[in-house]
Amino acid sequence: MSYFKHHVFFCLNQRPEGENCCAQHGAAELQAYAKERVKQLGLAGVGKVRINKAGCLDRCDDGPCLVIYPQGVWYTMVDRHDVDEIVERHLRDGEIVERLRLP
Amino acid sequence: MSYFKHHVFFCLNQRPEGENCCAQHGAAELQAYAKERVKQLGLAGVGKVRINKAGCLDRCDDGPCLVIYPQGVWYTMVDRHDVDEIVERHLRDGEIVERLRLP
Repeated sequence: MSYFKHHVFFCLNQRPEGENCCAQHGAAELQAYAKERVKQLGLAGVGKVRINKAGCLDRCDDGPCLVIYPQGVWYTMVDRHDVDEIVERHLRDGEIVERLRLP
Repeated sequence: MSYFKHHVFFCLNQRPEGENCCAQHGAAELQAYAKERVKQLGLAGVGKVRINKAGCLDRCDDGPCLVIYPQGVWYTMVDRHDVDEIVERHLRDGEIVERLRLP
């Protein structure tokens, strides 16, 4: 059994000006929002969900992106609505959100 | 199949002065060293190994710590010798290093 059921890593990397990166697409704000939502829904904690900051996940052109382990499911997202869908459908209900999934 | 065979997250969190945290035990230096060793051994890349920085993994008293996904194996380490063992035995040879494993 995994220490966290869903361990979520948001790429927050900031590349030099002009280069595409997750930070320039609001990743930090989306990570903070996800963390807050998970807490509000009572999903946070050992054996449950952990929302983490991460350095560059090396998928800069797919960003902002996140990965959920141990499932190894990658998502992209553009706004809070997308984060809500990932939190409620994947983290709470255990479904894959195909619309936002990265190959 | 996982995007990275071994996706390694080092906790680099810095807590306020006096509180136990990974950063005060050299986590940043050990992460940089691991990244360099993985590169030297030709293990880095998609389908292979990714060494990542992460925010607080919430196991502050076990630090410095890291987690390897999708296996979900947690390790602690104190020096470069420990990092060498994790890189060579786990990431290269696919064994678990029981000596350094966290429960």
